Amino acid sequence: MPVNLPEIDSIELHPVAGVKLGWAQGHIKKPNRKDVLVVEICEGASVAGVFTLNRFCAAPVTLCRKHLAGDKAIRALVVNTGCANAGTGELGMQNAVKTCEAVAELLGTSSEAVLPFSTGVILENLPMDRLLAALPNAVANLTEANWRDAAYAIMTTDVAPKAVSEKLDIGGKPVVVTGISKGAGMIHPNMATMLGYLATDAGIEQELLTEITKEIADLSFNCISVDGDTSTNDSFIVIASGQSEVKFSSREQDGFEQLYQSLLASAQQLAQAIVRDGEGATKFMSVSVHGAKTMAEAKAVGFAIGKSPLVKTAFFASDPNLGRILAAIGYAARECQSLSDLDTNLIDLYLGDVLVAKQGGLAPSYKEEQGQDVMNREEIDMTVKLNRGDVDVTIWTCDFSYEYVRINADYRS
Amino acid sequence: MPVNLPEIDSIELHPVAGVKLGWAQGHIKKPNRKDVLVVEICEGASVAGVFTLNRFCAAPVTLCRKHLAGDKAIRALVVNTGCANAGTGELGMQNAVKTCEAVAELLGTSSEAVLPFSTGVILENLPMDRLLAALPNAVANLTEANWRDAAYAIMTTDVAPKAVSEKLDIGGKPVVVTGISKGAGMIHPNMATMLGYLATDAGIEQELLTEITKEIADLSFNCISVDGDTSTNDSFIVIASGQSEVKFSSREQDGFEQLYQSLLASAQQLAQAIVRDGEGATKFMSVSVHGAKTMAEAKAVGFAIGKSPLVKTAFFASDPNLGRILAAIGYAARECQSLSDLDTNLIDLYLGDVLVAKQGGLAPSYKEEQGQDVMNREEIDMTVKLNRGDVDVTIWTCDFSYEYVRINADYRS
Repeated sequence: MPVNLPEIDSIELHPVAGVKLGWAQGHIKKPNRKDVLVVEICEGASVAGVFTLNRFCAAPVTLCRKHLAGDKAIRALVVNTGCANAGTGELGMQNAVKTCEAVAELLGTSSEAVLPFSTGVILENLPMDRLLAALPNAVANLTEANWRDAAYAIMTTDVAPKAVSEKLDIGGKPVVVTGISKGAGMIHPNMATMLGYLATDAGIEQELLTEITKEIADLSFNCISVDGDTSTNDSFIVIASGQSEVKFSSREQDGFEQLYQSLLASAQQLAQAIVRDGEGATKFMSVSVHGAKTMAEAKAVGFAIGKSPLVKTAFFASDPNLGRILAAIGYAARECQSLSDLDTNLIDLYLGDVLVAKQGGLAPSYKEEQGQDVMNREEIDMTVKLNRGDVDVTIWTCDFSYEYVRINADYRS
Repeated sequence: MPVNLPEIDSIELHPVAGVKLGWAQGHIKKPNRKDVLVVEICEGASVAGVFTLNRFCAAPVTLCRKHLAGDKAIRALVVNTGCANAGTGELGMQNAVKTCEAVAELLGTSSEAVLPFSTGVILENLPMDRLLAALPNAVANLTEANWRDAAYAIMTTDVAPKAVSEKLDIGGKPVVVTGISKGAGMIHPNMATMLGYLATDAGIEQELLTEITKEIADLSFNCISVDGDTSTNDSFIVIASGQSEVKFSSREQDGFEQLYQSLLASAQQLAQAIVRDGEGATKFMSVSVHGAKTMAEAKAVGFAIGKSPLVKTAFFASDPNLGRILAAIGYAARECQSLSDLDTNLIDLYLGDVLVAKQGGLAPSYKEEQGQDVMNREEIDMTVKLNRGDVDVTIWTCDFSYEYVRINADYRS
């Protein structure tokens, strides 16, 4: 079961004016489940996105990039689960284009105004007949009230749907931020097998939205790892519908920081939700790295720890076998060359509030019972002080259990 | 059980003239098992080594590097299992030095002529009283016939001991190559939680031995991965005792290539033995990458596949979910920047002899039954053709099973 992930029914999901969602059962991989989602976006909205860095990116990701770079304003999203449409060559691209064309025709817009998303098994072709048959049904139930169903419609191996929602008061005017995400495996930054959609009714000018979408992704979805695999299909989209009276064209405007922090916190919650629902996860770990020279160094250290199978199995067992953390720090230079002069004699390691290693060696004050006490928890913080610079970051990860192996050994069956 | 790893009792382990081995029960972590090894090396021998690139390298690794760089010829090795003496700061270094001093005194040599090795739990101090008490017992049974016991004495989570041995005829003169290794988890190149010792009675001049030791490590121990963790203690040592009549000071000499190939093949067998005995392994996979621009590219692609938990769990399940292989190739650029212009439309993927993906997409000829047939095997080859250069490499890895989680969740108990 997910680790401390709030039940979706306990969250009030505020509609975002100008953003309608409609779902359908496309029977893409399994019959009779919501697996197709269409989102219609009002005129005048801004939309920005960031995508996987995987070179084998899926056809829909390539098409998203193209449409976002084009001169048509984005008016719709279309999502299917059950098939990633990745590793599908020319036919995959034709299928992605056809999907956009079908949605465009149903909504009376152009196909370049549609962003397509697919997630599921790689190296299989989209069942176009079933997908195209489902689209009119999804369009038929478009409404601003459908966020909850939308969260269900984008799930793959997720155990639970993931959503956030917040009402802000910016200078006396109401603003809504609502979002959903999905993902549980093949999760590693840049990015995960994840989809994240965040919408606000505030207006944010296109250039500014593009800029902050990248920043927010770097501090949320690019700070999580379940298994160290970077998927072919990851996408994070922010929609600013502009239907609220609150509108921004510059970071310096009053109230922008408030909205920015809300969007960032929402994206972090959606990203953490993916880790809390990480395949087989029984623990949620926050790894804070302090005192790196650069963000790349800080993340390399955080992820060396956060994706080490040895660290993650020790946490699964609640075994304070903490030397494995030092070993992971020690090989972080593999992914960040500037760490090749890392002086391990400067490094302190804390588990929760317990000082475990001081200046690179076992802290004389450390007692195994203290470590054991922290390891028994379901939510565990650790802090690595590199003491070589002033950049800090926190990344989030989960443990590695029998259940992870079972899920991934069974995934296609 | 290890995958097709020959029983040590089925291998005739030829003694290497000039290399004596002695073991003892040091009760370092568990009572009553062989866990201490001393190797005495004759005068006139050459010794070379390569070590982990982990910045948190253990005290004994630091001391090995220092002693090999010094002006004293190496005359002895001392190995303990059960405690890695890593993450142990200044006290760890003092303990490594004391160990060398004790061996030196017992053998009548200088402590700078002794190379120390430790493997086991990180972030624990060596139990010096027990280790020092064991050393005289190890020295007391030094003999050239002890390779089999030595292979047992260096095991940690290994299920089976690992050894190779070969008799060569070089220009009518006999030469012996014999070696042992250990390692099963925290296995990733540069290097693994592994120890490898290879000895020949041929003479190889120091500079030449140092040169080829690096080359051989790069094509053997640096081509394996069990779990993607690079340990703090990895060491690979080659001893050329010079007791045979066959002696080399240059690569151009007749017969050198024959010895080189024997040493390389022996090192590869020892490295593959570690993968065959990989923690929880049920399958042995060879990943060949063809047509890379550089060795770094080829290895980055091979290891992206070879360490992906998603690929490895699919192989455990014999599930031809081969899109996961493409996804791994696609994110290999994370570890090798020159791959950031990788053109996935040029890539072909073979599983065994079966063409799975052609020019980056599902091969029209591919049938799932063909993939299933190969996946059912215990030894699986796959070939990735990048078609962008002329560098090839093969790396070896194993699958990822429930048993891996169990072993690593239980390791210290």
